[in-house]
Amino acid sequence: MPATLPNLRINSDRLWASLMELAQIGATAKGGVCRLALTDLDRQARDLFIRWCEEAGCTVTVDGIGNIFARRSGRDNALPPVMTGSHIDTQPTGGKFDGAYGVMAGLEVVRTLNEADFETDAPVEIVVWTNEEGTRFAPAMIGSGAFAKVFDLSKELGKTDLEGKTIGGELERIGYNGATPVGGRKIGAYFEAHIEQGPILEAESKTIGIVTGAQGQRWYEVTVVGQEAHAGPTPMVRRKDALVAASRMIDRVNRIGHAHQPGACATVGHVQVMPNSRNVIPGRVFFTIDFRNPSDDALTAMDRDLRQACDEIAAAAGCTVEVKEFWYFAPTPFDPACIAAVRAGAERGGYSHRDIISGAGHDAVYLAQVAPTGMIFVPCEDGISHNEIENATPQDLAAGCAVLLHAVLARAVRG
Amino acid sequence: MPATLPNLRINSDRLWASLMELAQIGATAKGGVCRLALTDLDRQARDLFIRWCEEAGCTVTVDGIGNIFARRSGRDNALPPVMTGSHIDTQPTGGKFDGAYGVMAGLEVVRTLNEADFETDAPVEIVVWTNEEGTRFAPAMIGSGAFAKVFDLSKELGKTDLEGKTIGGELERIGYNGATPVGGRKIGAYFEAHIEQGPILEAESKTIGIVTGAQGQRWYEVTVVGQEAHAGPTPMVRRKDALVAASRMIDRVNRIGHAHQPGACATVGHVQVMPNSRNVIPGRVFFTIDFRNPSDDALTAMDRDLRQACDEIAAAAGCTVEVKEFWYFAPTPFDPACIAAVRAGAERGGYSHRDIISGAGHDAVYLAQVAPTGMIFVPCEDGISHNEIENATPQDLAAGCAVLLHAVLARAVRG
Repeated sequence: MPATLPNLRINSDRLWASLMELAQIGATAKGGVCRLALTDLDRQARDLFIRWCEEAGCTVTVDGIGNIFARRSGRDNALPPVMTGSHIDTQPTGGKFDGAYGVMAGLEVVRTLNEADFETDAPVEIVVWTNEEGTRFAPAMIGSGAFAKVFDLSKELGKTDLEGKTIGGELERIGYNGATPVGGRKIGAYFEAHIEQGPILEAESKTIGIVTGAQGQRWYEVTVVGQEAHAGPTPMVRRKDALVAASRMIDRVNRIGHAHQPGACATVGHVQVMPNSRNVIPGRVFFTIDFRNPSDDALTAMDRDLRQACDEIAAAAGCTVEVKEFWYFAPTPFDPACIAAVRAGAERGGYSHRDIISGAGHDAVYLAQVAPTGMIFVPCEDGISHNEIENATPQDLAAGCAVLLHAVLARAVRG
Repeated sequence: MPATLPNLRINSDRLWASLMELAQIGATAKGGVCRLALTDLDRQARDLFIRWCEEAGCTVTVDGIGNIFARRSGRDNALPPVMTGSHIDTQPTGGKFDGAYGVMAGLEVVRTLNEADFETDAPVEIVVWTNEEGTRFAPAMIGSGAFAKVFDLSKELGKTDLEGKTIGGELERIGYNGATPVGGRKIGAYFEAHIEQGPILEAESKTIGIVTGAQGQRWYEVTVVGQEAHAGPTPMVRRKDALVAASRMIDRVNRIGHAHQPGACATVGHVQVMPNSRNVIPGRVFFTIDFRNPSDDALTAMDRDLRQACDEIAAAAGCTVEVKEFWYFAPTPFDPACIAAVRAGAERGGYSHRDIISGAGHDAVYLAQVAPTGMIFVPCEDGISHNEIENATPQDLAAGCAVLLHAVLARAVRG
């Protein structure tokens, strides 16, 4: 780390204005954003980002899974770049800040460097990762996962949405199937600024969360099969009601989350009932489970409890159940030097701060597999995100961006 | 009831052949029938029925909602007729027997009387009721409901399908807007033969179900509202998970069904989760409830238990709930003398039998409001109906028809 860093100041108003302009693409009546990955709206947002980056003098490349890299040259372009960014796809009823903040904060860092005519030693890259939300194409964080070689590229390109459209096909359709190879190059450091998406910073009145790592996650797809029958003439004792069994499993998932504290989360977010007719006993129910825990042992115990509960409940209801774990990653500690750079930035700015574990998955979690990685959290109102009412203050967002600027400089300028 | 009845035998092969010929109108590739009410296919089936009835010497009239009455004269035509029949419209993926069996069984009764040259005292009428299924025009059982003055005729004639076509317009288009007034005349007795559409007779190896009445029904729409939030960083204790609350309610609906036996049914068939994303805590869940019970008191108790359970569960989960009842009809007991006539027919034929409550709605339920009414059930394979694989054996169908013949004679011949 350099002994002294220039005293640059980010422009809070400009950061806020960029966020608000980006949020108009896919804006919802309730003040949120619906901009699913690889839709026409995603293309519009990507186009806008690239225009802004080119206006800021960056060179833009797109890789084979649609990740966008906007590079600001350094004094020594042979050095591995310091990279910062996040994603601009959203949940169906998402907010203005989740992901978009990390990308706009990266852009604001570059604009601030430009304004000061400050040249870093290493190049700085702003990145937009493809399909972070995992809501259109499962799982989440596909762009960064492919970049980190956690996922097989050709398999991910073939992944389909509910209408059977593939990632590869949609990338081509919107013109973002880039020529740059996916991953396989050295990254000096990766930083990601993000709203906390939880209530802790707000509850403790802290401005900056110094993220020390991420929770482990296990994601499941569960299919319960019973027997479809007419709701009128089928006696209760003869029923094989897949929805009753699934409902008991969903209740149990919640109880498992409560039982494996501290830090455990357990959520069923998606349910499909078949045939989903008022007077037909459901013959098949599909649902998803999202388990998280900072302890890998506890996550294993949650898995064991889940499988036992599902088997018992299905058998008692005369149904069969398949519990398929389709995504796992272990708890991920971040890089000590990157964590230190974030901490130094928070202290230098005089911001209140605390160390925090990320409960959400972030592109940074995959980047941590291939680069020294750190994250910066800022508070969001009531801890709410993945919701149209998601909110954060211009002051907190500016503080996080100032810390990001410091962390990027700490890694991009020779000591 | 007459002391002795003639020893007539229905023709099983003729009954089966008529059913199979009728099933060709709207036949599907999977062996079912798609013949929605008041379509060209419905007209073809009506035309065929009328031709057969006229060949059997009946006089055919059509009323103002398209119900068809084929009358075989009796010795004393001033007596109110004994009526039997059902419907010939089907579900979009319906079977060959639901409804059609009751109509063809009525025709077979008349053909058998003709063959034996047997004259009843009262006239016998075979009836086809309009739009029983309720799949093209809602609700179900519109023709019989209008006949029984449960529905207002002019309102029903104005009901539209999804394309905006009215019942009145479609009746006119297919030439079945008859001149006969709808209802308002005396019926000596009404009998309807029908496949059970449930598993009870088959499971107990009984040939004949002596239907003693129809269950009452209460249908609900329930909306649970919690708070949408990110599945990762939202601690379990801070969640307002609408799906966890709804799941506990669905479990409770099932337990309420079990608790209010005999005869209670409780089904949640339709669920919508919002936003239905894997890693978002659901903020809103909509689901439907179908409660049935042969006892109105028990149905009232089920309603009370439901509302109490929903309120308790919602409050405990930090959610709100709205429970809206949008359809109710009281349990309908059938006429003791008609029930006795069916029972006597089953015993005289030496058929195994049991008393049974109809869980499904039938035209007989509305006829019971204006005439002494009875029903005869025969088994259907695996209890499945409203499905192209709906099936029944020629033997069971013939047995039900023989019982129907006896019941009709018991009411149409003076003792």
